[in-house]
Amino acid sequence: METEKWLLLRRDQVEEILEKYLPAEEGDAATLLSAMNYSVRAGGKRLRPILLLELCRLYGGSEEVASPFAAALECIHSYSLVHDDLPAMDDDMLRRGKPTTHAVYGEAMGILAGDGLLNYAFEIIAGALSDMDPSVLPGGIRAFSILSRAAGAFGMIGGQCVDIEAEGKEEISDGLIDSIYHNKTGALIASAMSMGTALAMAHAEDIDRAAECGYALGRAFQIRDDILDVTGSEEVLGKPIGSDERNLKPTYVAMHGIEKAQEEVRFQTEYAKSLVDKMPGDTEQLRALMDYLTGREM
Amino acid sequence: METEKWLLLRRDQVEEILEKYLPAEEGDAATLLSAMNYSVRAGGKRLRPILLLELCRLYGGSEEVASPFAAALECIHSYSLVHDDLPAMDDDMLRRGKPTTHAVYGEAMGILAGDGLLNYAFEIIAGALSDMDPSVLPGGIRAFSILSRAAGAFGMIGGQCVDIEAEGKEEISDGLIDSIYHNKTGALIASAMSMGTALAMAHAEDIDRAAECGYALGRAFQIRDDILDVTGSEEVLGKPIGSDERNLKPTYVAMHGIEKAQEEVRFQTEYAKSLVDKMPGDTEQLRALMDYLTGREM
Repeated sequence: METEKWLLLRRDQVEEILEKYLPAEEGDAATLLSAMNYSVRAGGKRLRPILLLELCRLYGGSEEVASPFAAALECIHSYSLVHDDLPAMDDDMLRRGKPTTHAVYGEAMGILAGDGLLNYAFEIIAGALSDMDPSVLPGGIRAFSILSRAAGAFGMIGGQCVDIEAEGKEEISDGLIDSIYHNKTGALIASAMSMGTALAMAHAEDIDRAAECGYALGRAFQIRDDILDVTGSEEVLGKPIGSDERNLKPTYVAMHGIEKAQEEVRFQTEYAKSLVDKMPGDTEQLRALMDYLTGREM
Repeated sequence: METEKWLLLRRDQVEEILEKYLPAEEGDAATLLSAMNYSVRAGGKRLRPILLLELCRLYGGSEEVASPFAAALECIHSYSLVHDDLPAMDDDMLRRGKPTTHAVYGEAMGILAGDGLLNYAFEIIAGALSDMDPSVLPGGIRAFSILSRAAGAFGMIGGQCVDIEAEGKEEISDGLIDSIYHNKTGALIASAMSMGTALAMAHAEDIDRAAECGYALGRAFQIRDDILDVTGSEEVLGKPIGSDERNLKPTYVAMHGIEKAQEEVRFQTEYAKSLVDKMPGDTEQLRALMDYLTGREM
């Protein structure tokens, strides 16, 4: 498959970037560094860094400028999974078919490894800004602003808070589900696309469009995730299915059923693709990626 | 007491800065924002932001430029306490005489509030860099680098990892205790002093001297803390004493006794003051502050 091949190539590129930026596991705190690296190396689609690099490329930016931000973004995504899996949160022992970080390193080290990765993301960005050519520094600072906002209380962490508070509640409004999807999943995917655009020193309206596209894709991606939690295969997913229902998680699927959920995935994917059509350069792979992601089985 | 009065004035100044930067508790994630603010408002000496502002003043920098970094630094200090107090870590229900964050908001929200504060610190810095005058921007980026390094796996979080791993061990080397003190407490206090210096656009050697001074002060401060955990008054401290011994925490006091510990506090304080003597401007309050802090009863 064309898109699958392209994705694998891009994933390899991201893995190389990550290996360049991950810390050496030495010194007194070697256990912590090992737990941090374990969390990042546990794998995944590397969707967010791939999107960041692709948007930067579309807008004529440099891969060298974008690489540290791609690594930082993936560190933040990884930390969010490590803390999400903690006993006090979702209490998951398995992710992508592998033991979760706290399952291997213990709960205290799981908390610290998550903290360490979140902090390390900004360490990477601080290093990048220190070395940046003045001609692209404004884009770097813009990308730093976008990421710090998207990852925080007004983005991803805020979405996690609402998600936790909604668990087990009898009645959840459409608005609250939208807010969870928008912030918990959407914000970081939107930030991937808008950061890539900002790092290419594109105009504000291009940055905003990239973010809007990312929010639509994020929504489609998350609803597809919820559908797979009902209809997917444990073997293919590498994690138990039915966890949303067991954890009384409010989802679009639980509220509207599989059929309407699939319809919403299609609608959001088409909307995202209509925004991609307004982007410059060869957008064929990005369009194909959106279809691929929102029709995926894992 | 002169120094106490000066400290109270400076503390008021920091409280004002913090109130300016703390997020409004509104929107869907209001609980999270409330937990974050609760953690920061729980009080404390505000030592780190006071040091940052004072060093920036000594080197002729602007308070307006330093303020957001002072707020960010205190957010990071606060988050570290919130996560330190979690059940999987030190499991403390009381700090400074008040219920800890997870005791009030629950464990999941305690984890998220800590994450939120760590992230928010960098959100504040991203905003500051975005608005910064180009003439001081290099100092801002330098301060961002210093903080992200000091707070992370090669600084504070690394120190917490070593501290946790050392708990309950029969034999701990002097080198390991030094490493814990250097990273867990020293790094953030050193960063306070070197960030303030960097934000005033001082020379690299001044920034390095400020950091060295902060490490000495941090060591004196931490050993004094350990001494107070043995000899202090619960009423004055606002927390139970004897916790280090109960938790089998390795401390300088446990290894060398109270007398040698007091001697080390005096030695490090004098060394820190000798470095202050090399700093420009009116350093009288900073010298007095060091004596005050390392002779404190709370």
